[in-house]
Amino acid sequence: MPTPSELVDAVQFLDRLASLPRTGWLLRGVTDPESIAEHTLGVAFVASMLVDDLRARGTAVDGEKVLRMALVHDAAEAFTGDIPMPAKTQELKSALGRAEETLLAGVLTEAQLALWRECEEGATIEARVIKAADKMQMVIKALTYVQQGRGSLDEFFRGPANRKHMDLDLAREVYEEIEKRR
Amino acid sequence: MPTPSELVDAVQFLDRLASLPRTGWLLRGVTDPESIAEHTLGVAFVASMLVDDLRARGTAVDGEKVLRMALVHDAAEAFTGDIPMPAKTQELKSALGRAEETLLAGVLTEAQLALWRECEEGATIEARVIKAADKMQMVIKALTYVQQGRGSLDEFFRGPANRKHMDLDLAREVYEEIEKRR
Amino acid sequence: MPTPSELVDAVQFLDRLASLPRTGWLLRGVTDPESIAEHTLGVAFVASMLVDDLRARGTAVDGEKVLRMALVHDAAEAFTGDIPMPAKTQELKSALGRAEETLLAGVLTEAQLALWRECEEGATIEARVIKAADKMQMVIKALTYVQQGRGSLDEFFRGPANRKHMDLDLAREVYEEIEKRR
Amino acid sequence: MPTPSELVDAVQFLDRLASLPRTGWLLRGVTDPESIAEHTLGVAFVASMLVDDLRARGTAVDGEKVLRMALVHDAAEAFTGDIPMPAKTQELKSALGRAEETLLAGVLTEAQLALWRECEEGATIEARVIKAADKMQMVIKALTYVQQGRGSLDEFFRGPANRKHMDLDLAREVYEEIEKRR
Amino acid sequence: MPTPSELVDAVQFLDRLASLPRTGWLLRGVTDPESIAEHTLGVAFVASMLVDDLRARGTAVDGEKVLRMALVHDAAEAFTGDIPMPAKTQELKSALGRAEETLLAGVLTEAQLALWRECEEGATIEARVIKAADKMQMVIKALTYVQQGRGSLDEFFRGPANRKHMDLDLAREVYEEIEKRR
Amino acid sequence: MPTPSELVDAVQFLDRLASLPRTGWLLRGVTDPESIAEHTLGVAFVASMLVDDLRARGTAVDGEKVLRMALVHDAAEAFTGDIPMPAKTQELKSALGRAEETLLAGVLTEAQLALWRECEEGATIEARVIKAADKMQMVIKALTYVQQGRGSLDEFFRGPANRKHMDLDLAREVYEEIEKRR
Repeated sequence: MPTPSELVDAVQFLDRLASLPRTGWLLRGVTDPESIAEHTLGVAFVASMLVDDLRARGTAVDGEKVLRMALVHDAAEAFTGDIPMPAKTQELKSALGRAEETLLAGVLTEAQLALWRECEEGATIEARVIKAADKMQMVIKALTYVQQGRGSLDEFFRGPANRKHMDLDLAREVYEEIEKRR
Repeated sequence: MPTPSELVDAVQFLDRLASLPRTGWLLRGVTDPESIAEHTLGVAFVASMLVDDLRARGTAVDGEKVLRMALVHDAAEAFTGDIPMPAKTQELKSALGRAEETLLAGVLTEAQLALWRECEEGATIEARVIKAADKMQMVIKALTYVQQGRGSLDEFFRGPANRKHMDLDLAREVYEEIEKRR
Repeated sequence: MPTPSELVDAVQFLDRLASLPRTGWLLRGVTDPESIAEHTLGVAFVASMLVDDLRARGTAVDGEKVLRMALVHDAAEAFTGDIPMPAKTQELKSALGRAEETLLAGVLTEAQLALWRECEEGATIEARVIKAADKMQMVIKALTYVQQGRGSLDEFFRGPANRKHMDLDLAREVYEEIEKRR
Repeated sequence: MPTPSELVDAVQFLDRLASLPRTGWLLRGVTDPESIAEHTLGVAFVASMLVDDLRARGTAVDGEKVLRMALVHDAAEAFTGDIPMPAKTQELKSALGRAEETLLAGVLTEAQLALWRECEEGATIEARVIKAADKMQMVIKALTYVQQGRGSLDEFFRGPANRKHMDLDLAREVYEEIEKRR
Repeated sequence: MPTPSELVDAVQFLDRLASLPRTGWLLRGVTDPESIAEHTLGVAFVASMLVDDLRARGTAVDGEKVLRMALVHDAAEAFTGDIPMPAKTQELKSALGRAEETLLAGVLTEAQLALWRECEEGATIEARVIKAADKMQMVIKALTYVQQGRGSLDEFFRGPANRKHMDLDLAREVYEEIEKRR
Repeated sequence: MPTPSELVDAVQFLDRLASLPRTGWLLRGVTDPESIAEHTLGVAFVASMLVDDLRARGTAVDGEKVLRMALVHDAAEAFTGDIPMPAKTQELKSALGRAEETLLAGVLTEAQLALWRECEEGATIEARVIKAADKMQMVIKALTYVQQGRGSLDEFFRGPANRKHMDLDLAREVYEEIEKRR
């Protein structure tokens, strides 16, 4: 049960994501691109639809957990900024993960931190939904930028690392849909 | 169960909120203020903490419903932009509500539209959580802008309409906390 | 005869239009689009050329009235922001008109308010010039954005509501010219 | 009587002022300041109120001419950008004036160019109204920025060159009003 | 040997270039274009590579002088803003040069001012390197904007004044390379 | 001796720093803060004045090397974005350094890479000049933002890590000067 002071601190902390642009778009010449906060909202929304789909296909998912996980999945970037994927070696990822966990421990509640850790590990169905939604939101946003004529994004669509579907059927189908549209 | 095509459409639709600034901040001289999407993320995060608090105090809340409601509570603004509260007469609110519902019916799933409608009506505990979170996020953001020296926000804090707590204890305590900090 | 204090208030009020972007462009992916104030200036300039044309064709127009009307024709948006046309039902337009008139009565002089009302009603030749100039400026700006490769504006040119000429010959000819250029 | 093609060219030309920021604000640390187009709109509005005042005091003014002059008074900056006043020596002003007149002759109608020239010369009552409105808009905007906490503008208010009133009573009274408010 | 106070003043002065956009890009519809400071950095970097090339071809160049000259070559624009080339008549250039020298004398050290003057005169090999680098950076930036789909830059590449190579072989070869790429 | 193609690639690569904001300012609420490129230019300029000072005090420095080092000292951020200092553990710094060196090897010339590496190691007088200039530019910029009323920077000035002077007398004196001014 958060105190009022903890709530204000946590909200101001997460809100820092509203000031931080997604670096990958900047590097491809997209001006005034989405913030990490805007990306996070999209991830939560995609995730909510993946949950609907999984349930319709007979897979049980903890929907509240998925949505709470979405909210904090990029919280560490409020400390580090958005470091583009191609720059991250395996060694760097490990070092980064450890540094981030320490930093987050100072600002998130224990329950929120546990969700962030579970998402990083990627083992549960809820974490896999977020991992898929994270990539799906990115590819849909790339489609939007292409349709609006903003930036040089061809190379982007070639990267297989940008199309992870984590064995979720709807995710795979969405990538096919996007290929059709651009 | 959404089709891939419906998912892409819905995500691109909601993502329009990332291009739309919150008008109230613009009118008070805050440059490059948060988008509606960034506000929406904050509302979802505040709401998740209100749910924790309500449960700790013994009130049952449907957490997944609250979070799904947060995601779509401002979806109609993707059609209308953000119309500042002081401009809205009761007659205008009614006309707006009817226009919005028709527009949203074309882009949201039935379940999402039902959540939006429930939120507008404000009767259930889940809707009351979102109504409170909506104001709380705004007042915390105002505090942030004041601390950063951006814009003329004194008048803002005087408006009682900006401090609705909907009988939620934590909401009321958070407003007291904010008064202490500024 | 305005007092110095009224003049400063009125100028600061109208200047709020410089902080408010035109929502229609934002929704079509145009980044950092023109403000309402920049649109207003363009409307006044187009209107001045329509007046020249009407006079050359033998129609009497009150040029000073046209230009004063241009300055205030979007003044109500300093309260409401720019609400996109497709969102406006007839019921919404009526409710909005009534709310706007009340709000403007608090900040404009009586003479300015009368001009705003006359423009809304659209009956006089001066009001028809502004209505035509309002659309012409928008379509010329769309052409500029297309030529600069900013945003997705094809759908925009298809909307007949965007090509009102109010029976003014030059307006109709300008739309033909624009079709040739894009 | 402008051809449709001339109208489109002229409107696109003047609209370049919407892309050009006022340099003086940039140099004082105001981020995302008004464009020249937004300034121009403010000048036209101030000028319309000076006309009301002059008439009320018994001075005849050609109101249509004043407003048309306002629209084009900074048109040359669409070629040169906004060069700050302190940088302009007398020699530079003369050279600039000659270069501007040649450039404008290629894009404005003869009547518009004549108004621009009359404004530069500053001899008629209509030109004096624009000169006063030009400074008044600037000082009122500075007041707005001060009230919003944007930029370092103290030095700005000390410059007597920023408070020209051209013997217009209302202009002088407005400066006094502004001094009271900041 | 600069005093601490002189150093802070000089750095704050040159840093004004970070607030001033390059006007030529604005006029061609490039939104949020590079600042003069960003251009200056690019000029310094190009110049360092021209020095390498000249030395490899057997021409002696004072590399430190070239780089110091690059840093201050556009310093005068901190007073005047960036005035686009097409607007500059010969008379205007002379008047501008004289005004700029007087203004810079108040903020640069004597050695820095001497470098700025030598660059303006364009006689030494170091000055010619900067003149070539100035154009090369601009044309490479135009290529970048074209590749990113920002603005209307075709006309830009047609202007021979934008391709000065000052008899430097590498400069000429770079223009050929750029023609190949776009 | 760079080929034309290598020069264009290298310049476009370094120019990515013009699209990347300095994360530390964003996190403190500074809107539209300087880019890494603008910071880099400031570092080069400060470094040139430190060289003057060292020479006047009798210390030999390779001025061309210092300036070339300044140009590339933050080049790796074109891959990673600007990661704020407080987020960097010692382990993260090592992992980052290794990843960056590999990435830079693909885009910089060998000589440029050697300078970047020498700067990272920080052993030579030239590298120490850049390290000091890096902090001095940052603190002077913070002073500028404070004077302009942008952001919450008090905490910033308290951090001793932000005032490294590397045993350079002028650096230490400049920090004293800045304390006097704010």
